[in-house]
Amino acid sequence: MTAGAPAPCDLTAREAAARLADGRLTAETLVRSCLDRIAAREPEVQAWQAMDPDRALAQAREMDARGRPGPLHGLPIGVKDLMATTDLPTTCGSPIYDGTVLPYDAACVALARMAGAVVMGKTVTTEFAAFHPGKTRNPRNPAHTPGGSSSGSAAAVAAGMVPLAFGTQTAGSVIRPAAFCGVVGYKPTFGTIETAGVKALAPALDTIGVFARTVCDAGFLVDAVTGTDRPVTVPDTPPTVWLCPSPVWSAAEPDLIQAWDAVVEGLGRATRVETLTLPDAYAEAPAAQERIMAYQAFRALAHEWRAHRDQISPALRDLLEMGRTMRRESHEADMALLRRLRAGFADVLPEHAVLLTPSAPGPAPHRETGTGSPVFNRLWTLLGAPCVTVPLPGGVSDLPQGLQVVGAPHDDHAVLAAAAWLEQRFR
Amino acid sequence: MTAGAPAPCDLTAREAAARLADGRLTAETLVRSCLDRIAAREPEVQAWQAMDPDRALAQAREMDARGRPGPLHGLPIGVKDLMATTDLPTTCGSPIYDGTVLPYDAACVALARMAGAVVMGKTVTTEFAAFHPGKTRNPRNPAHTPGGSSSGSAAAVAAGMVPLAFGTQTAGSVIRPAAFCGVVGYKPTFGTIETAGVKALAPALDTIGVFARTVCDAGFLVDAVTGTDRPVTVPDTPPTVWLCPSPVWSAAEPDLIQAWDAVVEGLGRATRVETLTLPDAYAEAPAAQERIMAYQAFRALAHEWRAHRDQISPALRDLLEMGRTMRRESHEADMALLRRLRAGFADVLPEHAVLLTPSAPGPAPHRETGTGSPVFNRLWTLLGAPCVTVPLPGGVSDLPQGLQVVGAPHDDHAVLAAAAWLEQRFR
Repeated sequence: MTAGAPAPCDLTAREAAARLADGRLTAETLVRSCLDRIAAREPEVQAWQAMDPDRALAQAREMDARGRPGPLHGLPIGVKDLMATTDLPTTCGSPIYDGTVLPYDAACVALARMAGAVVMGKTVTTEFAAFHPGKTRNPRNPAHTPGGSSSGSAAAVAAGMVPLAFGTQTAGSVIRPAAFCGVVGYKPTFGTIETAGVKALAPALDTIGVFARTVCDAGFLVDAVTGTDRPVTVPDTPPTVWLCPSPVWSAAEPDLIQAWDAVVEGLGRATRVETLTLPDAYAEAPAAQERIMAYQAFRALAHEWRAHRDQISPALRDLLEMGRTMRRESHEADMALLRRLRAGFADVLPEHAVLLTPSAPGPAPHRETGTGSPVFNRLWTLLGAPCVTVPLPGGVSDLPQGLQVVGAPHDDHAVLAAAAWLEQRFR
Repeated sequence: MTAGAPAPCDLTAREAAARLADGRLTAETLVRSCLDRIAAREPEVQAWQAMDPDRALAQAREMDARGRPGPLHGLPIGVKDLMATTDLPTTCGSPIYDGTVLPYDAACVALARMAGAVVMGKTVTTEFAAFHPGKTRNPRNPAHTPGGSSSGSAAAVAAGMVPLAFGTQTAGSVIRPAAFCGVVGYKPTFGTIETAGVKALAPALDTIGVFARTVCDAGFLVDAVTGTDRPVTVPDTPPTVWLCPSPVWSAAEPDLIQAWDAVVEGLGRATRVETLTLPDAYAEAPAAQERIMAYQAFRALAHEWRAHRDQISPALRDLLEMGRTMRRESHEADMALLRRLRAGFADVLPEHAVLLTPSAPGPAPHRETGTGSPVFNRLWTLLGAPCVTVPLPGGVSDLPQGLQVVGAPHDDHAVLAAAAWLEQRFR
């Protein structure tokens, strides 16, 4: 390796894939580089719930020997510890499942393995993907939270431990940690990646998403596990963007407001910038998202509630207790609202329009305060809309923030293209 | 017990619940009666994949000691072997999971236990709830299939082994076996009962349903696990019914046609009978249901495909192979059709109208031919509509048939009420 060349673990996934394809890089070399980075950073970052370096290396050597079974050939990925794996325990961030090894891989894990991925290990999740934090620290400043619930996946990608990782979002669990850690997070349209084998929190909302260091890489991983191949390209002409401060703008903190204003001003010189005000009905969405999550979480976690209640954190017990007392009739009314807003959202937007909105109220708060607020994410998760967060320049603190790009359900390609354009501009 | 009084295992669930509540019956007596029936009939019927009589009795004695924790207090239920249980293996009808015990109960099992149910055992499912049959025989004639995929649940309830059982429907896996075995099957509106912990086949379609010997009992079980209490009552005035021979009427066999004609004629003398022709778009639904099932099944069973392909039956391999080659874009178009038809179905029906349509093309075919056809079920499953099948009088053979009552999503109460009225008329 020439001096100054990036370590293999710092390559983008697409660059690493290109080098693996033409023989400039072996999977074993790449995995060793990731393991070195993990050895260096893990004591501080604590991104991993379970790791087996020998097994990771064995998978890498198998890929090197086997040729090229798919687009992810030889690429190491992090798997949120909410997703079943046959070769490592799946704890769901709960002492209830300490050391539990399940007899199957989650669908997304199996699909990634079929595409040639090397499962590097299980990344820390908050307890059952709700709000009780795990051990992970923000790689940019260990006094701060990496966000949740996909804490370990965001931190691992940010620290260069893996180029790609899976997470899930039920409220704001992909977009928020990605923004806090300064990486790209992509929550595809609801239902894009099969959730079988992922511990359910609220099935009407649970969405598998991904973490990467570039927008292209994020699209690449989702394509690889859904059998699509539509590489993200930066559009030749700057896309029109629609600012949507969203119904929860009042939650914005000074750091965010400063960065937002600077970006808006800069964008105005580069492309057409419009403002979109959502119809009044959308203001009800964040509260409906909270109720749907509580109602469904109690039912999805009925076994843990019944058999292991003393091992559930007080915060999660409160959420489940709220859900327990909710009536089926009121839940059905909330679900009717969800369907109505989802179906109508494409008509609220001009065709292929993308919205810009904050990814979080501000930079990552201190760890003692929890994992930060999903207030800027609840609406979009309820809508099942594709969301991508890209690092947002210009905050006051040294901690990263994110700009969230949102589009109509199934218009993922437009969202990714606009996000790639923004990423290039902000670099 | 006086001569001629029914054995406890032959009581309806609501009657047994009433006797358990006022002390005329103990859970232990009821469970012993069910175990006796199982001992008598199981060698022929083969409804159970796993049973532990001592454990069932222990649960019953615990209920007797504990008082009354919920509406299902002391009632024995059968659990389809696609649903996780901590105390018995969960094989999903596949040799891949022979003897596998999972570390959690499925949500519906945990909710039933919270309501006081005694889990009697695991009922036979076809392989992963698809089409490869299990060992179960039709209790009315062992040369014939009980239907599938919830074969054991339908047969166990029909044979008086349990008053209630859980099943799942992705194409026609509740309504068809209930009709073939001569019991009531109820598939609630999509999403009514949480599916966490149930092996996924096609999550956009997978719906938990129930088997019982009366319509009231079926509604009672669903209410108990969803925290509702709206007892089914036979309406004072006969409900208007809308005949809907459905877009697949050409699949009807002579036995069905004869029974259908007789019922239609009888109904015409008892209430207002209208005919509903569905808009043309609904004719596409059965094929779309098949494609969605194939696409999602390949992804949901990606682990089994990757790691255990040689233990998958040829029929299921064919289904998965079909799904494997389908494109995400075409699946998204099918899902858009699903959402459009689901959202529009309530407008196709007059308010609170119920449709009458066949439950299956005819009586249960011979076992060697498989588990029968879900052709009369695919449309309603795609629509997420509530469906109840009640035994239909007047066929040519001695085998039962079913009349399917269907309503708009979330109008389960109207469907159950009409089904209860029909059940009373047919008795």
